[in-house]
Amino acid sequence: MDHRQNLLVGQSGGPTAVINSSLSGVLHGAAQSGRVGTVYGMLNGIEGYLEERKMNLSLLTKQERELLKTTPASFLGACRKRLPEELDDPLYDQLFQSFEKDGIGYFLYIGGNDSMDTVDKLTRAARKRGDKQVRFIGICKTIDNDLVYTDHTPGYGSAAKYVAASVRQMMTDAEVYTMDNVLIVECMGRDAGWVTAASVLARRFEGDNPGLIYLPESDFRLGQMMERIRALLKVRNTVVVCVSEGIHDSSGRLISKTGLSASSDVFGHVQMAGCGKILETVIKNEMNIKVRSVELNLPQRCSAVEASLTDVTEAWRCGVEGVNLALSGRTGQMVAMVREDTPDGSYRIRYEGVEVSKVCNMVRYFPREWITSEGTDIDKAYVSYALPLIQGESRPPMENGLPKFLYRDQSQNKRGIRK
Amino acid sequence: MDHRQNLLVGQSGGPTAVINSSLSGVLHGAAQSGRVGTVYGMLNGIEGYLEERKMNLSLLTKQERELLKTTPASFLGACRKRLPEELDDPLYDQLFQSFEKDGIGYFLYIGGNDSMDTVDKLTRAARKRGDKQVRFIGICKTIDNDLVYTDHTPGYGSAAKYVAASVRQMMTDAEVYTMDNVLIVECMGRDAGWVTAASVLARRFEGDNPGLIYLPESDFRLGQMMERIRALLKVRNTVVVCVSEGIHDSSGRLISKTGLSASSDVFGHVQMAGCGKILETVIKNEMNIKVRSVELNLPQRCSAVEASLTDVTEAWRCGVEGVNLALSGRTGQMVAMVREDTPDGSYRIRYEGVEVSKVCNMVRYFPREWITSEGTDIDKAYVSYALPLIQGESRPPMENGLPKFLYRDQSQNKRGIRK
Repeated sequence: MDHRQNLLVGQSGGPTAVINSSLSGVLHGAAQSGRVGTVYGMLNGIEGYLEERKMNLSLLTKQERELLKTTPASFLGACRKRLPEELDDPLYDQLFQSFEKDGIGYFLYIGGNDSMDTVDKLTRAARKRGDKQVRFIGICKTIDNDLVYTDHTPGYGSAAKYVAASVRQMMTDAEVYTMDNVLIVECMGRDAGWVTAASVLARRFEGDNPGLIYLPESDFRLGQMMERIRALLKVRNTVVVCVSEGIHDSSGRLISKTGLSASSDVFGHVQMAGCGKILETVIKNEMNIKVRSVELNLPQRCSAVEASLTDVTEAWRCGVEGVNLALSGRTGQMVAMVREDTPDGSYRIRYEGVEVSKVCNMVRYFPREWITSEGTDIDKAYVSYALPLIQGESRPPMENGLPKFLYRDQSQNKRGIRK
Repeated sequence: MDHRQNLLVGQSGGPTAVINSSLSGVLHGAAQSGRVGTVYGMLNGIEGYLEERKMNLSLLTKQERELLKTTPASFLGACRKRLPEELDDPLYDQLFQSFEKDGIGYFLYIGGNDSMDTVDKLTRAARKRGDKQVRFIGICKTIDNDLVYTDHTPGYGSAAKYVAASVRQMMTDAEVYTMDNVLIVECMGRDAGWVTAASVLARRFEGDNPGLIYLPESDFRLGQMMERIRALLKVRNTVVVCVSEGIHDSSGRLISKTGLSASSDVFGHVQMAGCGKILETVIKNEMNIKVRSVELNLPQRCSAVEASLTDVTEAWRCGVEGVNLALSGRTGQMVAMVREDTPDGSYRIRYEGVEVSKVCNMVRYFPREWITSEGTDIDKAYVSYALPLIQGESRPPMENGLPKFLYRDQSQNKRGIRK
């Protein structure tokens, strides 16, 4: 009989290109240690586990674990459930009973801010109960890069690389005609501008596009943008403007909301447009020139084909380190990445556990000092910070010309109905 | 003194990932032949050439020609100019005088339907003048794949590969939650559905997403789509619907126009939404479930990072063959790709010249027999047709984590103003 404790791992929150790489790292770490019994995966996070929906991940072959490393989004599915604030809630009793029944000694949760909150609450609920059976570890992921106490988050490097490469390619596209034109690129980021900031990496030379970059960390002024576009059009034909979805005016009103009030279609439905589409309309009408807006949308967070090898590798390593932390008896911690000072200035990351209670429910905004004084461009200090994160190309195996991924039978998701 | 005739090459129309590969092929073909003098590039096509804007492409190094092969969009810039119908127009006199002054013996034009029209008109204008000095050759390109007399067009394979890979990745993203949700993906294609049809290649198994695919070649019925989505949601949580931008109802009215009438923003501007956004709004309001729409937009046609190696190679070969046709004395022809019957069924392309007059101003629609009877899916015959076109990965050289491209100083575009 196997007396080793089992490991329970889950994924939660919005997809990134590398969450599964962390999962693959967890599986590798558990297998390599020889100290873990069965690895169970919660299907759709803690919400699915509460419904006893889980799978045996120890059955995955080494080849499947390898394929997982380059599969985007959440292999196990995700949820958005927040655990109750009240630690005496019977839901916690149910969970701890399940942990005991399943022989769980290690609980690893891969996710963003809300997931770290789950790890924190479980840690505190266990302490309150005097339960020392399970160690709770968080492995962070989010393209938003908005977690504190870590140099960056797994998922950000790939999103930044995708944004920078896409903007550079779209610049070549927008520049083919001689007529004046504006290209608006809307990137993800409601509160923090990290993803949009990466568009500065697309610049090929001093004075190149993108000509203007707007983050939610500074107030957006429409008049100023118009003025700047007019000035830029005096020296070039194409002006590329990159904006975060969450840009807002000085009163805090989202630009994406300014188009809503009068807008409805023939069916009487309210149309919802992003801020890029709204700026496109305004510029087109005010300046009467060719304007196009592109919302980069989902590919920003799920493009495994263009992922950063550095990001994929670091995400995997975070998974391995998460297992190590749990096995060393730590609990209530998140795997953080610390950028080390090296004699030659080369990039090196150290992995360490930080108190998850210090991380959860905090937001790390894009530093104001990395935004130029007019709020329209990104400082070189950011470029030095970000370049190491986008190095190297991760290449999923290709089959018949298309990326091959590992996936579960999605029909399992539809409760009670099987194909 | 060099008695060889010079070659004039131009690019026109909308960008693709591989137009520059054809240009690189032209440069290779010219250099290899030893029979061509200087190769000049028209800046912004025939329009720029009329303003004497051209560059000496013979000065490009072999390394630069190689870099050109994987650079998206038009290195030389493009135009949308249509030459006059009347062949006695003085504009033709101007052009033929310029050809003579520049010692042009070979005129190669890389572009879509309108560009083939330019080649045709120049050929006829030359004949009318009894001018036998210049041979006119068209090299086709368009992601739309809507030209006749060629098995497919350079640019289509890369667009198809991008669409299929993106949809497959977005499927993994959309499937992470258990709640019912619909993802609408809007692809390019106003009149022809070729690009959207490629989304069927994303399917991983029988019955997988995309659940519904709508092309402009059949009438779109909103009620039928709603019915089909409801039926699909009974067996799965996520329904992916791929639509061409040009889908229309049975009266021919574009779906993208149905949202226009009542729609304006607080500034009083009319908002223009794509059909994807409109369907998103309708489904959300009718069914009260999570719906997201993604417009694939520019990356479809300029993503060199995800281009098909088959496409890049064929585009390059079309450039080489264009030079060969011109050198062999042919004129008024377009380089066509003919799919050969091979004993083992393997994919092989033969390059040959076809009369450009038969090609220009014709549209090849997606075959109706490749659309299933309900108009909601694509037949396997298309899959057999398309798979060879997306094989192999073209990889631009990477520099500091991002694709490195060849580009001209864009400030040259702004007439009279230099940075």
